[in-house]
Amino acid sequence: MKKLQVAVLGATGMIGQRFVQLLEGHPYFEIGGLYASERSEGKTLGDVLSLKGVRFQEETLNTRIEVLEPKAVANRCRLAFSGLPAEVAKGTESALAGEGVAVFSNAASHRMRDDVPLLIPEVNPDHIELVRTQATFANGGFITTNANCSTTGLAVPLQAVYKEFGLKACYVSTYQALSGAGYPGVPSMDILGNVVPFIKNEEEKMEQEIHKMLGTLKDGRVRFADFDMVASCARVPVVDGHLESAVLKLGREADAAAVVSSLESFKPAPQELKLPTAPVRPIIVRREDNRPQPAADALAGEPERARGMAVSVGRVRESKGYIKFWLLSHNTLRGGAGGSVLNAELAVAKKLL
Amino acid sequence: MKKLQVAVLGATGMIGQRFVQLLEGHPYFEIGGLYASERSEGKTLGDVLSLKGVRFQEETLNTRIEVLEPKAVANRCRLAFSGLPAEVAKGTESALAGEGVAVFSNAASHRMRDDVPLLIPEVNPDHIELVRTQATFANGGFITTNANCSTTGLAVPLQAVYKEFGLKACYVSTYQALSGAGYPGVPSMDILGNVVPFIKNEEEKMEQEIHKMLGTLKDGRVRFADFDMVASCARVPVVDGHLESAVLKLGREADAAAVVSSLESFKPAPQELKLPTAPVRPIIVRREDNRPQPAADALAGEPERARGMAVSVGRVRESKGYIKFWLLSHNTLRGGAGGSVLNAELAVAKKLL
Amino acid sequence: MKKLQVAVLGATGMIGQRFVQLLEGHPYFEIGGLYASERSEGKTLGDVLSLKGVRFQEETLNTRIEVLEPKAVANRCRLAFSGLPAEVAKGTESALAGEGVAVFSNAASHRMRDDVPLLIPEVNPDHIELVRTQATFANGGFITTNANCSTTGLAVPLQAVYKEFGLKACYVSTYQALSGAGYPGVPSMDILGNVVPFIKNEEEKMEQEIHKMLGTLKDGRVRFADFDMVASCARVPVVDGHLESAVLKLGREADAAAVVSSLESFKPAPQELKLPTAPVRPIIVRREDNRPQPAADALAGEPERARGMAVSVGRVRESKGYIKFWLLSHNTLRGGAGGSVLNAELAVAKKLL
Amino acid sequence: MKKLQVAVLGATGMIGQRFVQLLEGHPYFEIGGLYASERSEGKTLGDVLSLKGVRFQEETLNTRIEVLEPKAVANRCRLAFSGLPAEVAKGTESALAGEGVAVFSNAASHRMRDDVPLLIPEVNPDHIELVRTQATFANGGFITTNANCSTTGLAVPLQAVYKEFGLKACYVSTYQALSGAGYPGVPSMDILGNVVPFIKNEEEKMEQEIHKMLGTLKDGRVRFADFDMVASCARVPVVDGHLESAVLKLGREADAAAVVSSLESFKPAPQELKLPTAPVRPIIVRREDNRPQPAADALAGEPERARGMAVSVGRVRESKGYIKFWLLSHNTLRGGAGGSVLNAELAVAKKLL
Repeated sequence: MKKLQVAVLGATGMIGQRFVQLLEGHPYFEIGGLYASERSEGKTLGDVLSLKGVRFQEETLNTRIEVLEPKAVANRCRLAFSGLPAEVAKGTESALAGEGVAVFSNAASHRMRDDVPLLIPEVNPDHIELVRTQATFANGGFITTNANCSTTGLAVPLQAVYKEFGLKACYVSTYQALSGAGYPGVPSMDILGNVVPFIKNEEEKMEQEIHKMLGTLKDGRVRFADFDMVASCARVPVVDGHLESAVLKLGREADAAAVVSSLESFKPAPQELKLPTAPVRPIIVRREDNRPQPAADALAGEPERARGMAVSVGRVRESKGYIKFWLLSHNTLRGGAGGSVLNAELAVAKKLL
Repeated sequence: MKKLQVAVLGATGMIGQRFVQLLEGHPYFEIGGLYASERSEGKTLGDVLSLKGVRFQEETLNTRIEVLEPKAVANRCRLAFSGLPAEVAKGTESALAGEGVAVFSNAASHRMRDDVPLLIPEVNPDHIELVRTQATFANGGFITTNANCSTTGLAVPLQAVYKEFGLKACYVSTYQALSGAGYPGVPSMDILGNVVPFIKNEEEKMEQEIHKMLGTLKDGRVRFADFDMVASCARVPVVDGHLESAVLKLGREADAAAVVSSLESFKPAPQELKLPTAPVRPIIVRREDNRPQPAADALAGEPERARGMAVSVGRVRESKGYIKFWLLSHNTLRGGAGGSVLNAELAVAKKLL
Repeated sequence: MKKLQVAVLGATGMIGQRFVQLLEGHPYFEIGGLYASERSEGKTLGDVLSLKGVRFQEETLNTRIEVLEPKAVANRCRLAFSGLPAEVAKGTESALAGEGVAVFSNAASHRMRDDVPLLIPEVNPDHIELVRTQATFANGGFITTNANCSTTGLAVPLQAVYKEFGLKACYVSTYQALSGAGYPGVPSMDILGNVVPFIKNEEEKMEQEIHKMLGTLKDGRVRFADFDMVASCARVPVVDGHLESAVLKLGREADAAAVVSSLESFKPAPQELKLPTAPVRPIIVRREDNRPQPAADALAGEPERARGMAVSVGRVRESKGYIKFWLLSHNTLRGGAGGSVLNAELAVAKKLL
Repeated sequence: MKKLQVAVLGATGMIGQRFVQLLEGHPYFEIGGLYASERSEGKTLGDVLSLKGVRFQEETLNTRIEVLEPKAVANRCRLAFSGLPAEVAKGTESALAGEGVAVFSNAASHRMRDDVPLLIPEVNPDHIELVRTQATFANGGFITTNANCSTTGLAVPLQAVYKEFGLKACYVSTYQALSGAGYPGVPSMDILGNVVPFIKNEEEKMEQEIHKMLGTLKDGRVRFADFDMVASCARVPVVDGHLESAVLKLGREADAAAVVSSLESFKPAPQELKLPTAPVRPIIVRREDNRPQPAADALAGEPERARGMAVSVGRVRESKGYIKFWLLSHNTLRGGAGGSVLNAELAVAKKLL
């Protein structure tokens, strides 16, 4: 298969750099262009790199950043990965779709649109069919979004449990990493030895998105799942990896062992389809009494290409009719660039590209 | 009033050192002796100090640590503040009570005993009467306990809300500071840039203690409060100050404004009695969108003697029939040594000492 | 004495907020106005506060920030404390001096000017006389500067040693706190669990300024001190307090004990004059084997008003003909706002105000 | 080549676990046994793992820890890697050498012995010949040591410069990572947001060891190099990677460019011999103005097996007749287990094994 040319939008940002990382040596895709705002025009990726400890090929580091012009992008690239900030994403992504580009976006702008899939291949792979209802689809242009980073980590195990036991309520509190705020992001003086119990719009996103993703696609539209979803979000001094404390009221009674079993036997589409960025085990249930931890588990996932794509779950336990567990996922891989790359791989598998 | 001589048990530990700090210049109490295990015998407090940035008087720093012998303690001290580790506390505290010493303990050993008050003066001041039912009371000896550090911070605002609106359920996730694990406590390599989603026995304590404290004393025994209490506890890289995310299902509907009003109008016993270590405002409701934060608010509370004794509450908001807020309290002051000192001050006010 | 009205320039910055803190209840000075750029115009100090854990009076928090207009400032204020960024400071401070305002600046712009004292009252109090050589002095306007934060902490003990033993060389490496970079300053992702071995222009400042300060004022100009001064500067994940490792080659041989003695017997002008912000002991020599430490010693200094104004020195030791020690000083108090406030107090004592 | 069986001594410690990591898939060596104190007897490596984020094979994790008995070790293993604590290392390592085992030790106990090489293959490969002078050599037993972690990182670039320009003095200040203190090591409350300017015996080791390593082997003994070496050592809140600020007075004048050139053209023995754990470039000179940094560069080194084995040098600059630079090396790889593994590889190349 000839590799598809892809554009990386917002290439200078935290998510953009992760897109680039994941595209190095990718079996389906090849970087066709790196795009960012005028501020970075003409600089190389190496000049603006803020990601630490990741190795890039010399050639990639020397690639120059270009200013995004939709037609020019469409001439060169079949698809685009978007790490654009929300305020820019809306118009730009629509314009690109209008030019026939398939856009896989990490931005929130289009997530809740009726005709846009809010997609996690492990959770709701069939929702990808929604793109066929988009006006631009005839010309090959469409928009697919991955979920918010905190929602993603939660959605994967929640779907496994929801499918088997149903769900009345989910109460979640997050311990979110700094990279989720981009770069420069959180000032060091605000977070060193501190926790900030506020992330703008984050709780709202979690409380909305989960119902769409766990919803059912029928007759070309998604019927939202229905259960209480209550989120509280905080920033902690951790570089990568969102940890979440989840308390569930299941639809029917089940003990911790049954929940563990549902998590471990979860074998969704990407694993069936052996998508390149899909981890062998999408959910890794840990038995230790103090895991998962960001420093140890953020990069969980095998093989090498899927590092950071597994969701780790630990301390599954019951208390007074509730199920409690902790979950961890890498916010800029699983919950960011990796999610969109997996979405695009699913699109290839579904022959949408 | 002649000052009462007090013993500090476990004086070398994190809580012990906080007891000493609070006793400097205390209007009712005076250090009669510092006690710890044989390992520290003969050393001065200055030799073993692990608390950073707190100023002690020269004389205090030069006080020698003694090995605890109950009779000797009883000869010298009317009361004892205990920062002993749980495994030692049980026997030692009982022995001291047997010798006629009034023990105010931070240890968990006796907290759930039927005849021992689990006391927060702002929450359940009348429970102090339980000490009269203790066998040793006739000789002046008795045991009073303060609650677990995480439970304390929660209990204060919860009581304000519970009294006014009733409560069906409380879901809480904690972001707990390092000093809660004592010294040396958590190894730096385990927590720098990390979160550890496990604190031994902590969730169990929170889920048990809250019902006793919010319970009703009647006919010499406490009838426990009845609502769902579900806790998830984690350690974060913060030195002092436990932050908690709370989600409440109230007994009757109320909006965020009504909850704020119940918190701000809360005027419990210690403030009525003007106890020396009681903060003027026991609950400080913050209006900013990103508070309370450990680095900014752990030491909330006025006057000077009550620094670290106020509970800060912020981001009171509603979502789908639930009330959410964040709370913060200083774990070794409000939730530790300060709690027991306040208990002893209440005992003085109630003429139990 | 009627209090002098002072302007705080750059009041929204890290140094500006420290000026405000030090002016609360100051015996000589009173805030006449808070000034910053247009971006903050009309906001209150409370709106823009980034300093954590410092208490301000309600009235101060409600003071509105104004845009700086030199004539208007001069009408209201006898002196100005400047926490302006270097690029703005140069012109603005000159303009203010031209209007007859005595400017005490933390900015680097005028430090190396021949007619401007680079002043630390403990080190070179006589240099303040340089202001008389400034063109604007006749009208009461002049500029005095405090040194760079890292230079200040070093200059105090270095002067004590230099006076007694002479100096051939000083090799210093710094471990500088985040607050030195202002706010928002260092992005958290750059420094959490990391050290950044670069601070723009910092090494150059240290290598230049020290010679001027330890120089001799004669015939209206400063003859620079002459010894090798080599600095290497790094940023570490610490909020406040610059730690420095110093290696000295003395002018004549001396052992560690003699050096300690010279440091402890150092009794410079501000202490003789009992200036309000001068610490009783300007240099505190620690005997522990692992001090000074930022978390424990940044706020060293008594009385209360002088907290953070003492320089802590520790581990004074010899090795192969060199003297080594560690020193620590609070970078935004001793090495920033506190330095300029002390300079202004010296000016009052010298009847220059 | 049939793989040699090796014993890992102190397998539960930080260095021991790094030995195990490096032995996985090693082309010359194979784990013959994991040894530690009685406390860990019978546990598996997985039970005691404190290293985070490193992947071990399932089989390795399930290997049981044994108690060390020299004869039994000698029966099974040709060589031993020792991560033993200094107080245990001395006797144990001697006993093993007596039994004919070649010991490659990270412990300090034998480093300064006349007949023991203090070996860094990039620095003094010929010193390995010293083992022939050991009494046990006839039976195949001998002891080789790697240097202290801070000394190692310095010795590599220092040797490059020393050989070319000579050296009068080296002043170094360290910024040392937490993993250097082992596990549990530094209590989190001592180091979070702090720097501790003291590491027991570290300065002494640096000041001694460097002269032996840069010394000349002649007639079976090492003549020590002669220049002023002054070290100041501090612990910083970084997990892995010792950063050091170095100031050099060269033997003959040279500018920064010449020094860079000497560092980059340095091609020592391990690279000539293509030892498996030798990085292609032993010294990586960085051109950015703010590197090397622990978070970005601790794991420098290629190929994969040599990650963490390169020394990064940056900010090479002149000031007043001195050369200054910063260097960084991974303290438990390059400066610990990796150093000893490379030593053993050199021994294989020299047919000493």
